Amino acid sequence: MGLRLRFPFFAALALAAVLPLAADEGMWMPQQIPELAPRLRAMGFAGDPRAFADLTGYPMGAIVSLGGCSASFVSPDGLIVTNHHCVQGALQFNSKPDRNLMEDGFLAKSRAGELSNGPGSRAFVTVSVKDVTGEITGGIDPKSADRDRYDVVERRVKERVAACEKDGLRCTVAAFFEGKEWFQLAQMEIRDVRLVYAPAAGIGNFGGETDNWRWPRHTGDFSFYRAYVSPSGKSVPFAKENVPFRPKQWLKVSPRGASPGDLVFVVGYPGRTFRLNTHAEVREKVEWELPRLVKRYADQIALLEKVGKDDKEAALRVSTRLRGLHNSLTKYKGVLEGMVKGGLLTEKERNEKDLRSFIDADPVRRASYGDVLPALDALVTERARTRERDALLLELAGERTRERDALPLELTGGMNPVPFTALASAQAIHRFSLEKPKPDADREPAYQQRNWTRVREAQERAQRNLTPKADRVLMTYTLTDIAKLPAGQRIEALDKAVGLTPGMSEADASKVISAFLDRFFAGTRLYDKEFRLGCLDKTTGELEAMKDTGLALAAALYPLAEANRERTKARNGATYRLGPRYADALLTRSGGLVAPDANSTLRVTYGEVKGVEARDGLLYLPQTTLRGITEKATGTGEFNAPKALLEAIQALRAGKKSPYLDPKLGDVPVDFLSTVDTTGGNSGSATLNARGELVGLLFDGTYDTEANDYVFDPVKTRSIHVDTRIMLWVMSEVDGASHLISEMGIEGQTLGTKAPGL
Amino acid sequence: MGLRLRFPFFAALALAAVLPLAADEGMWMPQQIPELAPRLRAMGFAGDPRAFADLTGYPMGAIVSLGGCSASFVSPDGLIVTNHHCVQGALQFNSKPDRNLMEDGFLAKSRAGELSNGPGSRAFVTVSVKDVTGEITGGIDPKSADRDRYDVVERRVKERVAACEKDGLRCTVAAFFEGKEWFQLAQMEIRDVRLVYAPAAGIGNFGGETDNWRWPRHTGDFSFYRAYVSPSGKSVPFAKENVPFRPKQWLKVSPRGASPGDLVFVVGYPGRTFRLNTHAEVREKVEWELPRLVKRYADQIALLEKVGKDDKEAALRVSTRLRGLHNSLTKYKGVLEGMVKGGLLTEKERNEKDLRSFIDADPVRRASYGDVLPALDALVTERARTRERDALLLELAGERTRERDALPLELTGGMNPVPFTALASAQAIHRFSLEKPKPDADREPAYQQRNWTRVREAQERAQRNLTPKADRVLMTYTLTDIAKLPAGQRIEALDKAVGLTPGMSEADASKVISAFLDRFFAGTRLYDKEFRLGCLDKTTGELEAMKDTGLALAAALYPLAEANRERTKARNGATYRLGPRYADALLTRSGGLVAPDANSTLRVTYGEVKGVEARDGLLYLPQTTLRGITEKATGTGEFNAPKALLEAIQALRAGKKSPYLDPKLGDVPVDFLSTVDTTGGNSGSATLNARGELVGLLFDGTYDTEANDYVFDPVKTRSIHVDTRIMLWVMSEVDGASHLISEMGIEGQTLGTKAPGL
Repeated sequence: MGLRLRFPFFAALALAAVLPLAADEGMWMPQQIPELAPRLRAMGFAGDPRAFADLTGYPMGAIVSLGGCSASFVSPDGLIVTNHHCVQGALQFNSKPDRNLMEDGFLAKSRAGELSNGPGSRAFVTVSVKDVTGEITGGIDPKSADRDRYDVVERRVKERVAACEKDGLRCTVAAFFEGKEWFQLAQMEIRDVRLVYAPAAGIGNFGGETDNWRWPRHTGDFSFYRAYVSPSGKSVPFAKENVPFRPKQWLKVSPRGASPGDLVFVVGYPGRTFRLNTHAEVREKVEWELPRLVKRYADQIALLEKVGKDDKEAALRVSTRLRGLHNSLTKYKGVLEGMVKGGLLTEKERNEKDLRSFIDADPVRRASYGDVLPALDALVTERARTRERDALLLELAGERTRERDALPLELTGGMNPVPFTALASAQAIHRFSLEKPKPDADREPAYQQRNWTRVREAQERAQRNLTPKADRVLMTYTLTDIAKLPAGQRIEALDKAVGLTPGMSEADASKVISAFLDRFFAGTRLYDKEFRLGCLDKTTGELEAMKDTGLALAAALYPLAEANRERTKARNGATYRLGPRYADALLTRSGGLVAPDANSTLRVTYGEVKGVEARDGLLYLPQTTLRGITEKATGTGEFNAPKALLEAIQALRAGKKSPYLDPKLGDVPVDFLSTVDTTGGNSGSATLNARGELVGLLFDGTYDTEANDYVFDPVKTRSIHVDTRIMLWVMSEVDGASHLISEMGIEGQTLGTKAPGL
Repeated sequence: MGLRLRFPFFAALALAAVLPLAADEGMWMPQQIPELAPRLRAMGFAGDPRAFADLTGYPMGAIVSLGGCSASFVSPDGLIVTNHHCVQGALQFNSKPDRNLMEDGFLAKSRAGELSNGPGSRAFVTVSVKDVTGEITGGIDPKSADRDRYDVVERRVKERVAACEKDGLRCTVAAFFEGKEWFQLAQMEIRDVRLVYAPAAGIGNFGGETDNWRWPRHTGDFSFYRAYVSPSGKSVPFAKENVPFRPKQWLKVSPRGASPGDLVFVVGYPGRTFRLNTHAEVREKVEWELPRLVKRYADQIALLEKVGKDDKEAALRVSTRLRGLHNSLTKYKGVLEGMVKGGLLTEKERNEKDLRSFIDADPVRRASYGDVLPALDALVTERARTRERDALLLELAGERTRERDALPLELTGGMNPVPFTALASAQAIHRFSLEKPKPDADREPAYQQRNWTRVREAQERAQRNLTPKADRVLMTYTLTDIAKLPAGQRIEALDKAVGLTPGMSEADASKVISAFLDRFFAGTRLYDKEFRLGCLDKTTGELEAMKDTGLALAAALYPLAEANRERTKARNGATYRLGPRYADALLTRSGGLVAPDANSTLRVTYGEVKGVEARDGLLYLPQTTLRGITEKATGTGEFNAPKALLEAIQALRAGKKSPYLDPKLGDVPVDFLSTVDTTGGNSGSATLNARGELVGLLFDGTYDTEANDYVFDPVKTRSIHVDTRIMLWVMSEVDGASHLISEMGIEGQTLGTKAPGL
């Protein structure tokens, strides 16, 4: 166990005594939970905290990653519950212009009717976590060049992964505490995941973008998948003869939900936090990256909404991307508000000043850490030199600006994102052709043989996103800004391909861009799925000979993109050198048990069901009920509660019995707030009560919580969960999904009333 | 006393016992308060409720009407406190493009610096209320024609007013309970009212339209006037040698404000409520009038904002009108939401159905009341025939659609609104010329000799609103719709003047309207104040001879406008016949003490300082604090908190002592919620604690309360007040108005700490 208690535990206890009303910070590694026993007991936990450290026991063995979302098994037949917004891809994949599952929802009346989520859909269950810090970082010459250090680490990670995956598992090596510690995670991988049930958008996405990150919330953000394996129990891609997977663990679903004051745990895969980042890194985000993206995402949203306005087919294709942009836009605004208005950036600055004083105050510490912060700051400065150009280069292919260098999973190639644009698709094809001829150990992690299926699946899945209509408006948008880049920061490949010259008038630039895009779209077949898949089998030379304008542009942009990746690798090598010492300094100063930043690995957080004074004069109550759906329902757009739902509410009001009614509230609860510490990626996470029963699903945080990714706010932090009672009530009273309630083994009669419809 | 207890009082007591947590309905006439003693005592009132019935004693003698707003004396030297939004006219009158008092606020450092509010500014103090029901309604032949009945009532009202005003008072006769009861009110009238102090818009209107009708609220909505009289104590218009008026009563201002659970009284002049209206009347409002106005006001706001966009002078001139339109727009939306979504219209319908059943259930009641509701409904139907045309005719001159026929004060000519447009100004001039030759008793009330000064002042005050730029865009807007009126509903005078024909194409109509307006604006001198005032001395013939296009249009429209007024008079005559019996039926059924609908006369309401669960999952806390100002401040637009305010908050945070800090909140309170029953016109009303001390000023209601004008909601009703502590703190710490704090006799040291700056 790598994360030992660094200071006597009373430090943490003292904190708890001082702040009994505040939220506890920490997305804990499962193996850290037993050490939190005193705090958990103080909060009323009567169980054995060691259960959380046993990844194959209850409840941890039931926890599922969907890659970007969290989920859990809730039946012995591999039924998986997650958020409605986590099954968007599956709904989009199975939708057609005349059968919009994203709007109408879906219910398989029997297992035969369960729909494949499409190529590349995965479910993972973490089965082991092993400290490999020594294996990854041991014996590296401190004087070696940063770029070389990167290669050493990458090679060692690849070796570990290769060794680990021999057992038929999917493995990852991830950095914790800025690379101070490294863990190897082994996951069972399920490759046939099917859509079982999703309520209509008017339930699962009720409130839409308007309510996103907001409270009070009335979203029934739940949906169901099922994991399938071959008849012999092997993980295989979708095949008709596959059978439901039988997990060793599945969660007991509580029909009693959660109530104010309850202790709750959230178990899942939080994506990324940056709380240990330096002030300079955070400041660059707050002063440059996020304001820039707020502007650009707002522009892109406007452009994409126009694209989909009178074109159902295009609207469908840009829907997932639009939802992502909307979500990020709101999030970034919230982060900025918290960091700037909420004063969190100032707090970060003060904190780092304190750290510098702490280091300076002692000669030994000064010798150990004195050079670290200046060196880390220099990396930020170096990266900033060409950041505008580099960001535009990524944007041209529809890629997000890198959240940060050194994505911990990148070393194991865990990403393989589905391309949103033809150019992104072409870049992946081109790179794949360059990597294939190399020995496997020398390939970029994302293009190692273990990921080849994913490379292909990503190209298949891309089909649902690709439309030249959207690509054209967004490429025009980005090229217009690329045209304005100052001398010294030009993208020469584009100057040449498009015919841009520095200082060109906007009108002239507009003309040549338009002419270039005419040629680009006339000369590419990248929107054809079979064409793209065929390209994956070709050599670089063969691709070049095809004279496809999309592939040609990818090839032309490759040298600069590759040079940027090289610079990133050198910076990462520097981070591997500096990060562990920086983390050492931080941890030495902080004392007590500390949770590492989230890095998409399995974590456990805990908190209390609780409201919050969100604004001066405004209190968020801890729970919402069906009443709020009636209040908000408009019959249209984001608040289009289905007729069947409104009728079921009327029936309830007219006296129809339900075991899911909360007697204190006199209504069926919908969503609730808790103080648990979560972030993106946690979506769909199991919310467990003190007995380990599923009482809800985490699906969001409040607006005030968004800056938590950078600086934790113990007062305002609130996560948003959907209560199991609204889920079961909708399944029973609205959508006729009683067979799934039965499958989950919920006994309505234990509540004194037989659940209707069971 | 005309309003007797109709049923044993335990009826009201029983209600109180059943609904201890609900708001009490009722804007009570002062003389009704003693009868509410048991309820008030149950709520913790230890004083003598009879004090409220004594209009010349404390506190009633200190209560002031500003005509449209309420206020109160707070010093023996005639200092008046009211809302910031009630002094907009005075700020606008004294503003110039380079000296915007509406933005920057104003403080007279000495009495010599106090600024005249301009012609027509008034303050009234009600000194007596007398039941004159018999004198107004007695002995009218039930068979007389409705139109004749109207004239009888009007003549009797004029006679009473003439007799009453002999004592040098301003008198009014007003109808209560749909004309079942009539009261004569005598008011002392102050005609020299001066601006003493108004904070900057960033305090007094902090939150602007965004926060209007909303909670949490952080508006410092307070300002000060002073009443002046001649050196001999007479009510005279502004003159330099005038001296401060010395009222008999002035309120003791509490530096302790109000806290949750406190019993509070609001004393002021609520404008109009329609709770006793029939279902048909309310339904017409909900289904036709308000949705129509929501659309038209939104359009007009957009047009006026464009007018003021790059023209400071025009922006100043349309500012008061814009603020009114914004306010009404938000209000009407709120009313509609409450009536439709909130189900209040359905409740009204159910209520009236119950009334019909109640009437039908008993032969005597059937005989007394059976014909009343059908007859009242027929009046609504008759009026509806030409409602679209009639509304457009009023709109063309910038007049509001009549809220209802039979404005109770119209009989005494209490309105004389300041014209917003040249055409409205011309119509008043033209009508005045027609009325002047008549004997005074035969004149329309608004044009009787007692109102001649007001007629002149209205024309003077109009100057600050008039701009051909705004008139042109709004006339174009209205004429475009007038052009589309169906055959049978044409406004022939306009067809002739403009050159419109039924069924004309929009493009053709646009052309002739534009040409007509070219002629209209080229040929009128109505934007010249001296010209308008000169016109008031001319005969109808002389006006005609001047060939002013504005006056000519007014004359051309007169026949239809007058015919509409004649129809209204006939309907009012019918209402005088039917209304009292309708009210009888209602009161007989309801039992207990009932408050009449608001009609701009002096009222007392009571309630408790208290939060509310405004939406499912969302609780409005009862108080806000300075903290919320910091949260909301953006440094621009509606949330532009002045630098001095933010600095004072910082000083407070840094430990500066203040007697206005609430120890429980740990901050200076800003606004608070209460359950008191109020409406428009109440703005600026004194909010008194159980000891009769001023603890705040009423300035708004929550959005959910707006439909209260039609149907009272005992659960969600909340009024919004500004606490005296933020007022005194701002005066002391931000605006340097300590001399006024001293004048109010507030002793900071009684709080244990000497108030800084005193």
